[in-house]
Amino acid sequence: MNNSINSDKNAPRLSYITKALASSYEKHGGINHLEGPNLPSKHEVQKLVKLLLTIMFPGFYEEATGNKDHLDTYLMAQCSSALECLSDLIQKSLMHECKEGANCKRTEGECWDCSVEIAYLLLENIPEIREIVNKDINAAYKGDPAASSYFEVVLSYPSVRSISVHRLAHFLELQNVPYIPRMMSEYIHEKTGIDINPGAKIGPGFFIDHGTGVVIGSTAVIGKNVKFYQHVTLGAFSLTNVDKIRQENKKRHPTIEDDVTIYAGSTILGGNTVIQKGSIIGGNVWLTRSVPPYTTVTVDSPYLIFKQKNTVKKYEVDYQI
Amino acid sequence: MNNSINSDKNAPRLSYITKALASSYEKHGGINHLEGPNLPSKHEVQKLVKLLLTIMFPGFYEEATGNKDHLDTYLMAQCSSALECLSDLIQKSLMHECKEGANCKRTEGECWDCSVEIAYLLLENIPEIREIVNKDINAAYKGDPAASSYFEVVLSYPSVRSISVHRLAHFLELQNVPYIPRMMSEYIHEKTGIDINPGAKIGPGFFIDHGTGVVIGSTAVIGKNVKFYQHVTLGAFSLTNVDKIRQENKKRHPTIEDDVTIYAGSTILGGNTVIQKGSIIGGNVWLTRSVPPYTTVTVDSPYLIFKQKNTVKKYEVDYQI
Amino acid sequence: MNNSINSDKNAPRLSYITKALASSYEKHGGINHLEGPNLPSKHEVQKLVKLLLTIMFPGFYEEATGNKDHLDTYLMAQCSSALECLSDLIQKSLMHECKEGANCKRTEGECWDCSVEIAYLLLENIPEIREIVNKDINAAYKGDPAASSYFEVVLSYPSVRSISVHRLAHFLELQNVPYIPRMMSEYIHEKTGIDINPGAKIGPGFFIDHGTGVVIGSTAVIGKNVKFYQHVTLGAFSLTNVDKIRQENKKRHPTIEDDVTIYAGSTILGGNTVIQKGSIIGGNVWLTRSVPPYTTVTVDSPYLIFKQKNTVKKYEVDYQI
Repeated sequence: MNNSINSDKNAPRLSYITKALASSYEKHGGINHLEGPNLPSKHEVQKLVKLLLTIMFPGFYEEATGNKDHLDTYLMAQCSSALECLSDLIQKSLMHECKEGANCKRTEGECWDCSVEIAYLLLENIPEIREIVNKDINAAYKGDPAASSYFEVVLSYPSVRSISVHRLAHFLELQNVPYIPRMMSEYIHEKTGIDINPGAKIGPGFFIDHGTGVVIGSTAVIGKNVKFYQHVTLGAFSLTNVDKIRQENKKRHPTIEDDVTIYAGSTILGGNTVIQKGSIIGGNVWLTRSVPPYTTVTVDSPYLIFKQKNTVKKYEVDYQI
Repeated sequence: MNNSINSDKNAPRLSYITKALASSYEKHGGINHLEGPNLPSKHEVQKLVKLLLTIMFPGFYEEATGNKDHLDTYLMAQCSSALECLSDLIQKSLMHECKEGANCKRTEGECWDCSVEIAYLLLENIPEIREIVNKDINAAYKGDPAASSYFEVVLSYPSVRSISVHRLAHFLELQNVPYIPRMMSEYIHEKTGIDINPGAKIGPGFFIDHGTGVVIGSTAVIGKNVKFYQHVTLGAFSLTNVDKIRQENKKRHPTIEDDVTIYAGSTILGGNTVIQKGSIIGGNVWLTRSVPPYTTVTVDSPYLIFKQKNTVKKYEVDYQI
Repeated sequence: MNNSINSDKNAPRLSYITKALASSYEKHGGINHLEGPNLPSKHEVQKLVKLLLTIMFPGFYEEATGNKDHLDTYLMAQCSSALECLSDLIQKSLMHECKEGANCKRTEGECWDCSVEIAYLLLENIPEIREIVNKDINAAYKGDPAASSYFEVVLSYPSVRSISVHRLAHFLELQNVPYIPRMMSEYIHEKTGIDINPGAKIGPGFFIDHGTGVVIGSTAVIGKNVKFYQHVTLGAFSLTNVDKIRQENKKRHPTIEDDVTIYAGSTILGGNTVIQKGSIIGGNVWLTRSVPPYTTVTVDSPYLIFKQKNTVKKYEVDYQI
């Protein structure tokens, strides 16, 4: 029955489609692996993130890790795979972004050596990143009475996965690796609904409850032991000259100091906005000014209208938190 | 150790479960591939979307596409697979939805020919769809100073994937293909948190920043160069007679004209609501009336309450955007 | 080219990394399958959820289920796989959580028998769960004019998948199975953006339109024929003594009675908050008090400001729903 796809009538159509696509790629680009240096693919970056997560939390993601006696062998194998995958991705990114073009004096081999060096640096930093993520896990356990154990937090909290991947991606961002950090953050955004730009600086003990809809911009700075709920945005003001802003790369997103809690649905905007130590921002707040230390900010109670058949009553909203 | 699953005690339970399930399927339906014509499965639709995305952006998703010399061969193979997969899905959908039932005079072969025709039409339209998506990509690059290049946008912006799949699904919707368009849009909703009904008409140069939580209803109409932020809803008013509305299929969702920007968390409702050219809708706005051209709409500053130990201060919210 | 990863210079680094990781695991834990009893892995739980969904909706997820004559054989095979996978996961969870430790008098075999028993109980309950989910599907069809058929709802509505998995996870939660219910709910949160804690009690005929960003806490209670839109939160008040709350396990989340509708973006908080029968909660409401039966609650119209070049107009928001 399938033969009508390749019928005499349709065969020329297929050949026409192929030509039209080729000329569309020619015109608009948007093709990869075919013209000039190869870019990393989504598929490779997913593989990398999964490998790094099994190194961060052995046994939590994959089926079998062997037993304790073979830990060394297991780790050696995982780390080798990660180094290879990471070096390859970094080299592709560096070569694609190379500003020198034909003038670049580095050989491909030297570029590879540089990629391997960055890959090693990341792996060497994983123990330190684990120290910090351990504080994030404790913050999640302490912050949510529905969490029944440390293990449940690692196994099932999107916050832990999201912040772990962020800390790895942020490290690569600091090494000026193009593409990869943002692709890693988008991968975990896809999985958790939490969108943290790899540029954001985030202190230890960070916990996001539920998480869906959280957005943290590239120049945001967050201190220690900060807690967010779902739908919190740390954003920038509207932009009239995007190209200029891109070049200057000024701070456009807020600073959140230590021990701050921000409830669901709140939006905080602007590079000069500072939420100082110990403050609490209630739900659905729209904040574009700084907040002094140990301050609770809530929306000034608007009213709620309760309508029944014959009666209408008006109550103040109680933004209790 | 596993044997107790099939122990003498448990064997009758398994047989009981099997019978109970069979009779539950009998009673409530909800079974596929077993009764009457087969429906498309989620798995096949996922495969289709992945194939179409590799044709839209060769090399960005999969690992290897070969080199430029082999582009023709590669494209021919990808397009053949897509045509086969798509024709099969369309035929299943058409046959399942067939209103004629036993009275249908078309042979299965004729139904297949019609499915192949629609599959070819979609593939033949991909170059044109790429023209439009190219404008979407440029809009993303121009609209976000955190985007470092055209390539980064294609590699890591959920907006690009979401709108690309929408434009493909919308084309199939216009061909009256049942099931598949909605399944494609739900697949990409799952991946991006952006929920665009395939019925929505969207002009070129559309960009959704961050995206999580965006909802665009089936009869919404969006002009050129429109920009949304996360959590924007284009919705319908509450429904008292759903069956009647389903039959009439009237416009229930808003119209957004060219060059409009809508900030995070805003909700716009109703089929007669029109946001005219060049207007800006601020954050957290709830809008059920039309807006004239070049108008900025913001919530009338409610107050924020700042409480510290001994002091309470009240500030107007500054809905700066 | 790859050899510089294992060059003489780098080989000692790899060995250093391996040792540093091993000692990091030693110090902070966060390793699984290597120390003491094994925990379930994410991968296994995903496999389980997929298996259970194919039993709930045969043919909707996977490619082929054979034909009606072989339904028995097919079901027997699927159920056996599910029983095996589930028993294994339950046993791992029970053994890991075992409070008895070395004092536990149960043999591993007895623990396995108990796990098999719970696995059978779940499978035996699937027909009953299907009865309830069938009402959820009908509610979705009746509640959304964009739904063109029962089949489209099963094939493409995130609400159906989310509530189906919730009802299965909730059953295991009632059997006091550790870890698995929460991992199942997080898996489907990842897929749908709908975050329902497995502890929540939800009556039949439940429908969540769009769904992204919905959060339903562990002690929430929801009656029959309730409808939510996206971004609705049933949450708890802020917590000063999390450990105490964890131990007491009091009701901290609201009760929603029969026939209630809650529009997008509303937040309802507190264990004593009851939304009584037939009430309607409008969009963006922040509610911490109970609502009597058949009441419509809306935000008291704040104003919208429309600014154009020379004019500023002020309109009341019409929270029409």
